[in-house]
Formats: sequence, structure tokens, C-alpha cells
Amino acid sequence: MSTSLFTDHYELTMLAAALRDGTAERPCVFEVFARRLPEGRRYGVVAGTGRLLDAIADFTFTERDLELLERTNVVDEATLSWLADYTFTGDVDGYPEGELYFPGSPILSVRAPFGVGVVLETLALSILNHDSAIASAAARMVGAANGRRMIEMGSRRTHEESAVAAARAAFLAGFTATSNLEAARRHGIPTAGTCAHAFTLLHDTEESAFRSQIETLGVDTTLLVDTYDITNGIKTAVQVAGPSLGSVRIDSGDLGVLARQARDQLDSLGARNTRIVVSGDLDEYSIAMLRAEPVDAYGVGTSLVTGSGAPTAGMVYKLVEVDGRPVAKRSSHKESRGGRKASLRRHKETGTALEEVVFPHASEPEMGAHDRLLAVPLIRGGRRVDGLDTLAESRERLRAALVTVPWEGLKLSRGEPAIPTTFL
Amino acid sequence: MSTSLFTDHYELTMLAAALRDGTAERPCVFEVFARRLPEGRRYGVVAGTGRLLDAIADFTFTERDLELLERTNVVDEATLSWLADYTFTGDVDGYPEGELYFPGSPILSVRAPFGVGVVLETLALSILNHDSAIASAAARMVGAANGRRMIEMGSRRTHEESAVAAARAAFLAGFTATSNLEAARRHGIPTAGTCAHAFTLLHDTEESAFRSQIETLGVDTTLLVDTYDITNGIKTAVQVAGPSLGSVRIDSGDLGVLARQARDQLDSLGARNTRIVVSGDLDEYSIAMLRAEPVDAYGVGTSLVTGSGAPTAGMVYKLVEVDGRPVAKRSSHKESRGGRKASLRRHKETGTALEEVVFPHASEPEMGAHDRLLAVPLIRGGRRVDGLDTLAESRERLRAALVTVPWEGLKLSRGEPAIPTTFL
Repeated sequence: MSTSLFTDHYELTMLAAALRDGTAERPCVFEVFARRLPEGRRYGVVAGTGRLLDAIADFTFTERDLELLERTNVVDEATLSWLADYTFTGDVDGYPEGELYFPGSPILSVRAPFGVGVVLETLALSILNHDSAIASAAARMVGAANGRRMIEMGSRRTHEESAVAAARAAFLAGFTATSNLEAARRHGIPTAGTCAHAFTLLHDTEESAFRSQIETLGVDTTLLVDTYDITNGIKTAVQVAGPSLGSVRIDSGDLGVLARQARDQLDSLGARNTRIVVSGDLDEYSIAMLRAEPVDAYGVGTSLVTGSGAPTAGMVYKLVEVDGRPVAKRSSHKESRGGRKASLRRHKETGTALEEVVFPHASEPEMGAHDRLLAVPLIRGGRRVDGLDTLAESRERLRAALVTVPWEGLKLSRGEPAIPTTFL
Repeated sequence: MSTSLFTDHYELTMLAAALRDGTAERPCVFEVFARRLPEGRRYGVVAGTGRLLDAIADFTFTERDLELLERTNVVDEATLSWLADYTFTGDVDGYPEGELYFPGSPILSVRAPFGVGVVLETLALSILNHDSAIASAAARMVGAANGRRMIEMGSRRTHEESAVAAARAAFLAGFTATSNLEAARRHGIPTAGTCAHAFTLLHDTEESAFRSQIETLGVDTTLLVDTYDITNGIKTAVQVAGPSLGSVRIDSGDLGVLARQARDQLDSLGARNTRIVVSGDLDEYSIAMLRAEPVDAYGVGTSLVTGSGAPTAGMVYKLVEVDGRPVAKRSSHKESRGGRKASLRRHKETGTALEEVVFPHASEPEMGAHDRLLAVPLIRGGRRVDGLDTLAESRERLRAALVTVPWEGLKLSRGEPAIPTTFL
């Protein structure tokens, strides 16, 4: 499927006017950045770049797309025929997926003639804003879980396609698995599942439901024990499965208290290796509050797929340079800094990040031994650069980047960005 | 594209166990409902039903889908071959799109053998939860705008596919148009667009940008006047376009003050019919605050596509009946009411809604002359019922339904649901 109509009407009318007056050919630089992090957040996680590169490759105007534009008179004939030949021919640099970002970080830089670059605004922002919002929330949850297994199970609480992208972003941020099967097919993410209350209710007794599940899925499965009464549920689960039962899941009630009771009960029944999975409106705060409890895995849904209060990253796509000359809106406090930019992150000798430095691309700021440039080439002459990170590599990149965040910046509480952004 | 992998892992493992033990054939009823409205909201708007019916028709397991399930060992051979033959064969009733809903309203009822119905859980919830969240927020914004034009322009702040569904939900709720071109192609929604700051910045002067836009799009276009200085921008706009200029857009600053100044200036320049479009982080509250100002149209983005604080409707899909016997989870406060249900809405003689009555489907509660049953047949024997509402009809249904809401229930402030739900 082509991605070219994931585009706002005005991009094509601007294109039409620019084609007519000749400015469509002017070499331009567009930059993606976030003016600020969501309220109180300490860092953002770049996600979606890989999906964006695929979407740019599919950004062509098929017959079906052109027919819509013609029928609705969005653009004139000359523009239609220009679009019919469109493929992206420019260069793109950007922060790799899994990199941290801060206010003003130049996350993506698109260099192309105006007409070639302007039409990517909506597509680029849709993907980066969604995926980065989810990954940023997910990273906080993974931190709060402190190494315990995290299962993403929020598909039902978001658009069916967002669900697939959310599963990808969560995996990037360190989640162990997803419930979403399409995410497995499309992105190779491991899936996991337990059981719903419906399965127990379908059967004449809880025991027959447990027996059926174990006969089909083996004793290493996860039995959902809170349909009727948790204590009875656990007793029945171990009776049916024996002490080698894989896991029990608790989906309601005071999860801390119930996890402790369940652990005691399982231990007393000899099921010392049976794990406890908890779920039910968990977010980074409730995950953190369960740190001291005998919980082995968390199932996280709504708060993950809605960005835990910040469902969009709020990034913008701004024209910063025309014909080599910096440009910027000047009427309001929402000023943008003109000119093509690059950035580096300074670190202490110990590896702890100190500041994000954003500088004019043409300048050469002093680099310390522990500093590093942040953007990498993504597309050259319309062609995706070889050897870009796999999803697994992006996951590892984030893991490593989070190690560099100062302690204060890893707190879940609201506060300032973990490191300041300095504009040279 | 098939929709069958927009599904959680556990639905297929439950299916596998139920096929093996014979319970997959048990006749079941699943219901979709919301336990509560988002905090402080007075009503919800059902949206997505039309998309769901399409998605159920496309719910088949293609080779590509089966290959994933086989490769990842999610289910056994017997289940794979059952899935290969899957098409939905059951019955579905539900609230039509554009209908209001309240806590406990039985929004969708799926009647099918367990195996046939259980696999639709994630798909049904993804679509209804997303689209209803957007439509519910959009309806409040449309109410706040009090008849003025509303343009949905939030695509860049949400996943690229959610953007298309959000545009559809916003149109259902009374928005005039969307910026999203794919929404025009897929759902026939009118599109609109103005211009970005990038277009002005691309040109050597604001005047040359305005001139170019008018030459291509005519004087009825919308000029964006706040790139440099709004007063100069408006002056230049009218100089270039003449007093027949269609609209000016202001995207920053104190929109109320600026709209008044712009109106005065436009009037003094003779451009008395030039409209004023405002945009920039608008939500239902800021729209309402601009009621007294000379604003002709609102462009709404982020808050619309993120449900204005409630990005998901929180609906659940619960098994309520097996073999004609009511079933319900019993371990917690989150109790569900077992049994297949129907509902009616009671109204005063004046047409004002009084209460939502939810009753066992088999019972026949007394119906007053102004009461009406709420669900309609959607699918019979797997086949979509003929003559279901078009999107335009759903839009009109919502408009009419909102007229029945008691005054108190149309307030934007937080409070109780507009009418109580009574369970018989």
C-alpha cells in the first residue's frame, strides 16, 4: 500500500503553488524536533525511524491516490503529473532509534528541494510522534520493573494499527513480549499470552478450564486464578497442574497484597518455582510500587499504548533553511531556530551524560573524548543507507543510553530534563 | 489485507484448548460495554461500528497469517486447520454509530459459538475504543464551537492509520472537514487546508508567498498571516488578495485578542467578509472561551486525536452467556452482570432523555411512548444486515441524540453522566 495520502491537504496545495512559481526546486532543510518533553518527563526515546524509512520508500502516488486528488480538485493537472513521478530523492539524517532526545534535539533532518520535502511532514510526524510517545512511556515502565518480565497487552485500548506500532515501540524500550500477533508477523517480536476470564466462565468448573488449558498448552502455561476466588483458584491450579505449574496471573484487587498471599500459598503447596504475573491498569508508578512484592512479570495495557498521560510526543517538522539561508518564524514565543543543525552529547569521564549540544551544522564544536555526535545518515539520494540498526540493536542502544542518564534523571517523579540542551 | 492478526495471542490459545475439549462449539454471548465514562464526562459517543463490520468481513486467516502462527507455534495443527476455514458466522447487534452511550450500555452483542466469537475480542475493542474516544471528545468540541466550522488537523499527532480513523470519527461528531487526504479517499470526508509557515519562509517575502498562493488557489484561499507580524501580515494579505480574500489563519498568541484585532483590521480594510480561522493547541475549553470572539472556524489537532485527555474509551468485551446460562466473573469489585442484555432509553414527553435502562434480553420492560430500544441488528448469520446507516446518517443521528441530552449534561465541566443507567 502506498503511504502518500497519509498527508495533509495543505502540503499538496503548497506544492502546487510552489511548482507554479518555481520555488518548489529551492534546496531546503526541514528538521524534526520537540520544543519540550511531555510535562515533567526527564528524557524522550526516539522510536519509529525504521518504520518511517519504510513509509518513505512506499511514498508514491498510485493511480488510486491520483484519482482521489483529481476527483476532489485538491491540486491542478501540472501538480498531478509531478506527483505521479514522485519518489523521495533527498537525504535524511537523524537520531537512530533507541537514542534519547531532549528539548530541541534535531531528531530528523530532511534535505531536499522544497516540493520533495514538504510532502513528508505529516507522515514523518505521525510515525515519530506516536512511536516515540509509546517508547518514552515504555522505557519508564521497564526501568520501574527493574529487570522483571514485561508483557505488552494494550492492543485492545488503541487503534488496531497503532497497536502493532505500540508493540514494536514497547519491545524497543525493553518489554519482553507482546500479546499482538501482527507485531510478531511484521516485526518479529515475541508474543505471549495467558488466558481470559471468558475461558474459565465457558467451562462448567474452574478445574475443568484449568485442566483443558494444561492439556493443550502444557504445565508451563499461565493460569488465570481470579475468576471466582483467588485462594481457591490457586489451590485448584496446583492440584491440576502439579507443583511445576509455570505461572498464575492475578488481574484484579490489591496486587501487592494478593501477590504476597499467592506466593505464600504457592510455596506452601510446593510450587516454589511457579511465577506470579500481575495485570490490571498498571503504569510506571504502580509497577514501581510493586517492586518489593513477589511479582515475576507485569502485563501492561492501557497506560502503555496511551503513552501514560502523554499520547503524542509533540514533535514538529520545520523548514529551517532555504538555499543555504537560515529561516524561522518570528511572530511568537514559539520561535524556531533557523539553519541546519547537528548535535552532540557531552559525557563525564564516567560515561554520565552532561548536556545535549545543538550547533549549526557547518560549525565544528570542540569534542571531548567522551562526547559523541548523535545523528547518523539514514537516506542518501533517496536510497536507504545500508547497515542501519535492527530493532534488536536499537533496543540495545536504548539500554546503553539509559545507563548514561544521571541518577536524578531516572526518577519517575516530575522534574526537569535529565540534561540541559545548549544551543551554540 | 486480512485483519485476523489484530488479535491477542491468548485468544488463539484459548481457542486451541476449547477446540480440543469440545467447548469451542458452545453457544455464547459476548458483550461490549464501558464500566464508566472517562473521568467527569457526561456522555459517550459510539463510533467505529462501520469500520468494525468491514474488519469482521476481512477477518480471515490467509496463508501469510497461518504461516506466522505455525512458525511461532502459537497453536497446534488442528487449530490451524480450523482457522484456515474461519469466517464469522454469528449474529451481532449493537448501538448504531452516532448513538450516545452511558456506563453499562450494552454497546455490542456478539452471539456465536465460543471459538467463533472469542477471536474477535481485540479487533472489536481496538476499533470501538479508539473511534469512540475520538468521537466523544469531538462532540464536546463541536458543541463548544456552537455552529462554527471545525477543521480536524491532528493527523501529525497520532499514528498514521489512527489519523484516518480519527478524521472519520471527528466528521461523525460534526466536524466540517479534515486535513487528512486518506480519510477523503477511504471515507469520502471533505478535506480542507490552509498553508504552513514553511511556505512563507520558502519565499523571499511574505508578499510573494501570498501572491503565489492566490494565483494557484484563488482569492477564496486561507492565508496564514502570523509568520512574521500579524498586523503586517493581514495588511499584505488584503493588499495582495483584495477585499474578497477568503480567510486568514492565526496559529499562535492569545487567539481571542488577536482575532478581535484581526477583525477590526480586516473590516477597516474593507475585507468584511474575510473569515478568521484560528488554530494552535485548541481543545473544547479554549474553543468555548473563544465563543464571544469574531472567530469563523477552528482548526483542531492534538486534543482531538488524543481524545482530549481520554485517549481510549475503556470498553471491555465480556462473555456473559454460555449455553443460555448467564456467566460473570465474581472475584472483585469489577463484577460484570451476566446474561444477554438489551437496553432502552426513556425520554420525557419533550424528548429530553431521562434514563438508560439495561435489562435481560428475554424480558419485556414497559415502554413509554417516548422510549426507544437502542440496539439494531448489524450482522445475521455472518452477513452484514442491509441498509445500515451511512456515515452521513450516523452524523445526523448523533446531532439528533445530543438534542435529547438534558442541559446539565451538555456542560463541559466535570460531573456525573447526563442520565443514570438503571439495571433491571
